Amino acid sequence: MPDPIEDLRTHLAPIEDLKAAATVLRWDQETYMPDGGAEARAQQLSTLQSTAHERFVAEETGTLLDRAADAVGDAAPLDTDAALVRVTRRDYERAVRVPSSLVAELSKAKSQAQQAWTQARQHDDFSRFAPHLERLVDLSVEKAEAIGYADAPYDALLTAYEPGRTTAEVASLFGTLRDDLVPLVDAIGDALPIDDTILRGTYPQSDQRAFGRSVIADFGYDFDRGRQDVSAHPFTMSFAPNDVRLTTRYDEDNVASALFSTIHEAGHGLYEQGIDPSLARTPLGDGTALSTHESQARLWENHIGRSRPFWRHYLPALRDRFPSALGDAALEPFYRAINRVTPSLIRVEADEVTYHLHVMLRFELGRGLIDGTLSVNDLPERWNEAMDTYLGVVPETDANGVLQDVHWSQGAFGYFPTYTLGTLTAAQLMEAIQDDLPSLSEQVANGRFDPLLDWLRSHVHRHGRILTAPDLLERATGAELSADPWLRYAENKFGALYDLA
Amino acid sequence: MPDPIEDLRTHLAPIEDLKAAATVLRWDQETYMPDGGAEARAQQLSTLQSTAHERFVAEETGTLLDRAADAVGDAAPLDTDAALVRVTRRDYERAVRVPSSLVAELSKAKSQAQQAWTQARQHDDFSRFAPHLERLVDLSVEKAEAIGYADAPYDALLTAYEPGRTTAEVASLFGTLRDDLVPLVDAIGDALPIDDTILRGTYPQSDQRAFGRSVIADFGYDFDRGRQDVSAHPFTMSFAPNDVRLTTRYDEDNVASALFSTIHEAGHGLYEQGIDPSLARTPLGDGTALSTHESQARLWENHIGRSRPFWRHYLPALRDRFPSALGDAALEPFYRAINRVTPSLIRVEADEVTYHLHVMLRFELGRGLIDGTLSVNDLPERWNEAMDTYLGVVPETDANGVLQDVHWSQGAFGYFPTYTLGTLTAAQLMEAIQDDLPSLSEQVANGRFDPLLDWLRSHVHRHGRILTAPDLLERATGAELSADPWLRYAENKFGALYDLA
Repeated sequence: MPDPIEDLRTHLAPIEDLKAAATVLRWDQETYMPDGGAEARAQQLSTLQSTAHERFVAEETGTLLDRAADAVGDAAPLDTDAALVRVTRRDYERAVRVPSSLVAELSKAKSQAQQAWTQARQHDDFSRFAPHLERLVDLSVEKAEAIGYADAPYDALLTAYEPGRTTAEVASLFGTLRDDLVPLVDAIGDALPIDDTILRGTYPQSDQRAFGRSVIADFGYDFDRGRQDVSAHPFTMSFAPNDVRLTTRYDEDNVASALFSTIHEAGHGLYEQGIDPSLARTPLGDGTALSTHESQARLWENHIGRSRPFWRHYLPALRDRFPSALGDAALEPFYRAINRVTPSLIRVEADEVTYHLHVMLRFELGRGLIDGTLSVNDLPERWNEAMDTYLGVVPETDANGVLQDVHWSQGAFGYFPTYTLGTLTAAQLMEAIQDDLPSLSEQVANGRFDPLLDWLRSHVHRHGRILTAPDLLERATGAELSADPWLRYAENKFGALYDLA
Repeated sequence: MPDPIEDLRTHLAPIEDLKAAATVLRWDQETYMPDGGAEARAQQLSTLQSTAHERFVAEETGTLLDRAADAVGDAAPLDTDAALVRVTRRDYERAVRVPSSLVAELSKAKSQAQQAWTQARQHDDFSRFAPHLERLVDLSVEKAEAIGYADAPYDALLTAYEPGRTTAEVASLFGTLRDDLVPLVDAIGDALPIDDTILRGTYPQSDQRAFGRSVIADFGYDFDRGRQDVSAHPFTMSFAPNDVRLTTRYDEDNVASALFSTIHEAGHGLYEQGIDPSLARTPLGDGTALSTHESQARLWENHIGRSRPFWRHYLPALRDRFPSALGDAALEPFYRAINRVTPSLIRVEADEVTYHLHVMLRFELGRGLIDGTLSVNDLPERWNEAMDTYLGVVPETDANGVLQDVHWSQGAFGYFPTYTLGTLTAAQLMEAIQDDLPSLSEQVANGRFDPLLDWLRSHVHRHGRILTAPDLLERATGAELSADPWLRYAENKFGALYDLA
């Protein structure tokens, strides 16, 4: 008897294998690959990606989807088979609309732009990057036109990362956020600064590694189904729910850097390890949106890892691990130090408050490039103006300004806002969690994380891509995404820390 | 203007990429993959292999080969384009002859046999493995019939590893070898044993690693185009001529184990790193036969690494690295210890002399299974009889006897003889090298390896698969493969070491 769902799964599974294989190759590229391997690796990745893409955009996928759609009919939102058809259809429609000639042009332009960006940043010379960025903007607009959108071309790019969200919605959320955030940052700037010299000292990498591993193992990150390595930029990659890998980097002069990056990546990793194993080898077996992914990272990093109860439990162990640097560290100064807020030039070094001003700036400028209201040539000046307005600091060089991020050179327009959407999502989930788990603070102060992890597994992780980010949040919290929970969290926490009125 | 060679290359390059990607996944599986990743990895590898296979056996390959053959005509043996057509045709004919149903059956049977072998070895119970081995023998014979052969089905299996060689030729070489080797081993057994306790002591892994790396870097192994990691069984894998990776394992109680394994694998690695880069992403871009590969490993391991001139140069550095264990080690006892010969039960622990008796035994028994003169049920008894005849030792358990190697459970009939063919090849190359480089010993004693590496690069490495192993050897040494050079080497070296008449 024919089983159209099974036929669809059988068709999609090897495509997922090819994508997973590409992820293994990228993981290796960032961790262990010798320099000499770069050229061959680029070719291998290109072949894997194009092989997976060709199989996916084949007519057969459409035919199998049509048959499977008839078989599932109107099913409940959490029905896996219906979700498989729904999500695969969404991916398929998007993929077939972009002509393969444009895919190839974009791929070539990105590769050239990344090389130009590296050079431009190294020589602090935006003009080397400008023509490549212009080309990427043009091709991205072309791609957006091919995909189609209701309101603005930026919508079509945003939905690659955030299915179900619009540019207007993001702009509105960011507007609310900005109205409260800029005054909060100003007030913190006028308050007595926090001293964080306690974090500086000598912290051998092997001890940092052991401590970080013990913390995330306590959270529930499973080292039998993952590992942690070192890379230039921390990341998480999943090859399967049972093989989810983290990386970090170590600063032996600062105890906080690798630890919070480890906790952050473990948040991503716990999400991937928690996806229902039955979704493996299907398009449902990933995190549903970048914002949902980032919410898991930020929830563990900031709401747990930068909280007082957490350090009530872990500071003694940290002191034991680093007796000469931290032997006499007390809870309150340590807690204050890891929550210091100070405007700075570089996004990836920003604290959890000012970070969102960096993101907003990038969202506004990126959107302007795509909708044609901002020209590439005006970008550096507009960047510096916005830095001054939002953060009160202005970079002296473009290398520390508009050239600091790799993302635009990768053509990733629509990507930056997901960081802040993730933070808002984390705070909104956290309010729901605190309602459901009134003893959470006490549990965290006792090093017990299983109630929290169970909640996240059940409301977020296990669903994979069955629900879109908006649907998932609505089911988990009963409300649409709002900036208010995070603003309440930030105003409470940092109001107290900085003794604000 | 159509270019049939270029069309063929364009068709083959992504197939090579897929195979290289599979190699990256296997490397990861043996080095860093967490246990949980095994199931998904098997699926990913299966998809990569079947995708590469389907593309290769497609009719298009045959059409492109026909057109390319017309274009190259009768070219010189070293002409790359002609070799591309010749070697790809050979691979293609072999691949299309095996029905995909048989490929799938073999793949399934191997997977089941490997699990059964693991269990059988663990419980020292050959009967658990026997039915699986029978099935693999039957399927291998079926495969041999599909491929075709001139003389014996074993020929068809052997040529997977050794194009251009026959079972009869191997049997004849091994006959010559056995006639001299068994008396040599007997004579050594009657001589005063060599004391190798000097090799035992405490040798921290990090120091062993540093020393091994320095030695193979001196040889010319390029760490910018490779790396060395740890795995349960040492191996070398190439993803591209510029990304060739070695592994080893460390025994902290023995200074010789990891060092000679490192040198051995570096021999393989130098071969792969030395292949003409223009052959990358073609079927020519690998070592030409397993015996040629093994010859490079054995040449560096035994002819160089276990020689007096080598230790004249390196023993002082080794003493400095391990002052407490080796501070007063003198050259002669050390040289004797690393060349100790003693019959033993386990092939992978055997010395360079008795090793070949282990190989012969496997060749003879494996060939018997395939030509039907030996039944699986009689195998353990025949194994033990042969051990007694050849080595004078008999295993007390099948786990230490017929079940010790994984290879037959992988259906790798025809594989074992390549080890000894490689050793014979190494000795024959070495006589030619000594003719061309009369100062080789002096160079080695001064830590200078570039003349040797240049010779190997020029006569062996750079050709990739352009020449078959017999053609390569004939061009490099002016003679067909013979057992005599190795017998001369062994009788000289071990005659002196054991003071034989």
